[in-house]
Amino acid sequence: MLKKVSILSLISAAVLSGCMSSANPANDAKHTMQQADTPKNVIMVVADGMGPAYTTAYRNYMDDPTTDVVETVVFDDILTGNASTYPHHMSGYVTDSAASATALASGEKSYNGAIGVDHNKVNVESVLQLAKKQGMRTGVAVTSQINHATPASYIAHNESRKNYDALADSFFDDRINGEITADVMLGGGTQYFERDDRDLVAEFIDADYQYVDTYNKLATLPAGSDVLGLFAPVGLPPALDDTREHRLSYLTEHAIKHLENPEGFFLLVEASQVDWAGHANDIGSAMAEMDDLAATISYLKDYVKDHPDTLVVLTADHSTGGLTIGANGDYRWSPEFLKDMKSSVHTIAQNMPDMDQPLAYISQQLGFAFTEEDHTILNKVLEHEDVVQREAGLKKFLDMKSNTGWTTSGHTGVDVEVFSFGAGSHAFVGQMDNTDIAKRMKAFVSGKARQLSTSDEPVVVPSDDTCNFEKDFHCE
Amino acid sequence: MLKKVSILSLISAAVLSGCMSSANPANDAKHTMQQADTPKNVIMVVADGMGPAYTTAYRNYMDDPTTDVVETVVFDDILTGNASTYPHHMSGYVTDSAASATALASGEKSYNGAIGVDHNKVNVESVLQLAKKQGMRTGVAVTSQINHATPASYIAHNESRKNYDALADSFFDDRINGEITADVMLGGGTQYFERDDRDLVAEFIDADYQYVDTYNKLATLPAGSDVLGLFAPVGLPPALDDTREHRLSYLTEHAIKHLENPEGFFLLVEASQVDWAGHANDIGSAMAEMDDLAATISYLKDYVKDHPDTLVVLTADHSTGGLTIGANGDYRWSPEFLKDMKSSVHTIAQNMPDMDQPLAYISQQLGFAFTEEDHTILNKVLEHEDVVQREAGLKKFLDMKSNTGWTTSGHTGVDVEVFSFGAGSHAFVGQMDNTDIAKRMKAFVSGKARQLSTSDEPVVVPSDDTCNFEKDFHCE
Repeated sequence: MLKKVSILSLISAAVLSGCMSSANPANDAKHTMQQADTPKNVIMVVADGMGPAYTTAYRNYMDDPTTDVVETVVFDDILTGNASTYPHHMSGYVTDSAASATALASGEKSYNGAIGVDHNKVNVESVLQLAKKQGMRTGVAVTSQINHATPASYIAHNESRKNYDALADSFFDDRINGEITADVMLGGGTQYFERDDRDLVAEFIDADYQYVDTYNKLATLPAGSDVLGLFAPVGLPPALDDTREHRLSYLTEHAIKHLENPEGFFLLVEASQVDWAGHANDIGSAMAEMDDLAATISYLKDYVKDHPDTLVVLTADHSTGGLTIGANGDYRWSPEFLKDMKSSVHTIAQNMPDMDQPLAYISQQLGFAFTEEDHTILNKVLEHEDVVQREAGLKKFLDMKSNTGWTTSGHTGVDVEVFSFGAGSHAFVGQMDNTDIAKRMKAFVSGKARQLSTSDEPVVVPSDDTCNFEKDFHCE
Repeated sequence: MLKKVSILSLISAAVLSGCMSSANPANDAKHTMQQADTPKNVIMVVADGMGPAYTTAYRNYMDDPTTDVVETVVFDDILTGNASTYPHHMSGYVTDSAASATALASGEKSYNGAIGVDHNKVNVESVLQLAKKQGMRTGVAVTSQINHATPASYIAHNESRKNYDALADSFFDDRINGEITADVMLGGGTQYFERDDRDLVAEFIDADYQYVDTYNKLATLPAGSDVLGLFAPVGLPPALDDTREHRLSYLTEHAIKHLENPEGFFLLVEASQVDWAGHANDIGSAMAEMDDLAATISYLKDYVKDHPDTLVVLTADHSTGGLTIGANGDYRWSPEFLKDMKSSVHTIAQNMPDMDQPLAYISQQLGFAFTEEDHTILNKVLEHEDVVQREAGLKKFLDMKSNTGWTTSGHTGVDVEVFSFGAGSHAFVGQMDNTDIAKRMKAFVSGKARQLSTSDEPVVVPSDDTCNFEKDFHCE
């Protein structure tokens, strides 16, 4: 028996380190994380709208230009695959966040707009709901309102993402084993949870949830609490404007503090506003939201180092905006114009007319000195009486300076990257579909994935066609 | 000893099948390919300009819309990683095809425009040149002229890609162990090889090379010949217009026929015109060139099944055109308007004014019936006397029908996908830099990569930081 375990460990270690180490030998943080095969805790991180161009752009944005190489970033040693994102065919090839979140959460393709229901509008079970059913603690930590499409698809069911009030109601009304579905909910959304027609916050408080409405109050709660934390009427302020620089990382840390327990937990983390920056074609905010995501992943790497029984999977639900690194025939991208922004273009556009020296203010807020040509352009932007037009002018100005391209205010259909580390991360390697991510997580959460580390079965190295993930989780 | 080999095989099989099988259990073609660890033959396939949106678009383009899923394509079971493409920092973050080909060929970052020289214009050795030095046979099979940036970076050295005549001269003049660098060269380029000032074709013939100028003549040559095959003055005709539907697959098959030998071979295959379609923002040609690439990979999968001692790596040098699947705020991509094209928009634009019924001709060539609105648009296109404007009008029409987005006539900086299969493909997993691909291939070709299958050394499972690919090829 001892000898078999030894061979098993050897193979397990070989599979994990072999897959990863050849990828990027410079980064070894990952290897320490990969020790167990079946996770006790599962953390799903969705970076909404983060197509492949966003991660490359972030690497360039973080580059130290005084060195010969573009330094690797926190994502580079955890890349394990790509995922297709298309919705049910009734919605074509380009998904919205509801259909993709439903796919990532439940493993079922659905139509654009669907929250936790399939293409026939029949409820489908999410991995979070399954985890709750299995006795695990469950939570969400997001920068949108907590009843926005992605978190809602893990917690509720509705034929339309637009039914925000009904979704908020479901967060309280839906019960699993008699309990509220999510034990911890952190994000925005007071507008939907404290309404004239229904005060859900009061109902959560009466159900023994701790309610907090500031980041600082969140820090005062004793570990292991059931928590409703709503820090804004709708979504949180943009990363560039929020009082806390890395608010998603902070919320994630606190969510975990309240979720940890002997039975394990499932946590959905969403960097919701990468998508919003993409919709707005706002490259400055896109990079700042990516930086908050990077801080979150960095925190989670440390967490998994200390808790190797935890799985973390990071992916996007789709790409937003048709972002391209370079545009207009010019072989150039200049992230140096984005690195020192003090606030979002939205905030700058609001404040600029009230300033004594508007150009000096804009220069200070954007973080770089202007040329004569910049002055001419920005004086024209200042002439707009409409704040929306001033904001659009600032975005076009930053696109020109950085040479950033966009093709749409909506989504695009490109495959997204899949990153994973920790226990069970070997299950998220290579090309997959977004539904595969949910299916594999659900197999872990339900205990249906064979536990190699505790198995008494002999080692079987499968031949070519016997390695079927659905039938046999461990295909080593 | 027998026992050690058995454990070794077990681990080796585990690493390979473990990495791949969990990725896409539906596809098992790959597993049969991965049996040896150190390749005898190395085939590098560069799909010039093929950013991530191209492979996803091709999957949608090939989709059978009558089924519930988007069927997987030939690339889906061989995805193993992503590569960064940035050039030497003197050229910023967006590479051209010369700098990226130099990186992929030699492992050295250089400036945009550099062919086989580093940023100080010092010659660097390509993996093809190293293979020749090691006594392997060497070749290129491309759809551009053979002295275009990518193949030239594997065969020659020049401070500028624009020096086409000098590059052609180098193809004959440069010698390795007294021999011409490439034994087989298939593609376009008679304009550069049969010049008034120098007839390189004659010189190759005098050096005992077989010279052919048609696809059919290529088929007549006895296996193992040294071959110069030039099938067009500059690049080959576009895939949509060529007499042979899958010309790259055909050239690849014939290149291998002449390269096979007991010492092994190195072959560079380039789907050169994916990039040209991208530069032209021509989505119809982009998909047709991808289809030729897919046929080539399909052929190579069969080849590796029969020759498991062969490594195939497919990647792109960069993305071109800022292609996006969907655009203009519309959550739609409609590849059905691209699937039945009979010739390129370039050819249609040339021919349309001479037709009795131009709209009927265009409809027949594009392969779909027109609406009233389409008639109005195309009648305006027909009014242009300039063929360039007619072609631009047809491209805009197809972009509108398919809802395709573009941001540039040049390149963009997004990371590209890495696909690999066959012996040694475990070395191309996860996030890497384009230079890593050359370094790892050169380690194989030089014999410096430790041969696990024949090693007498004990199995060492590395701890976290001992897995250094540069020092130790097999990091299991």
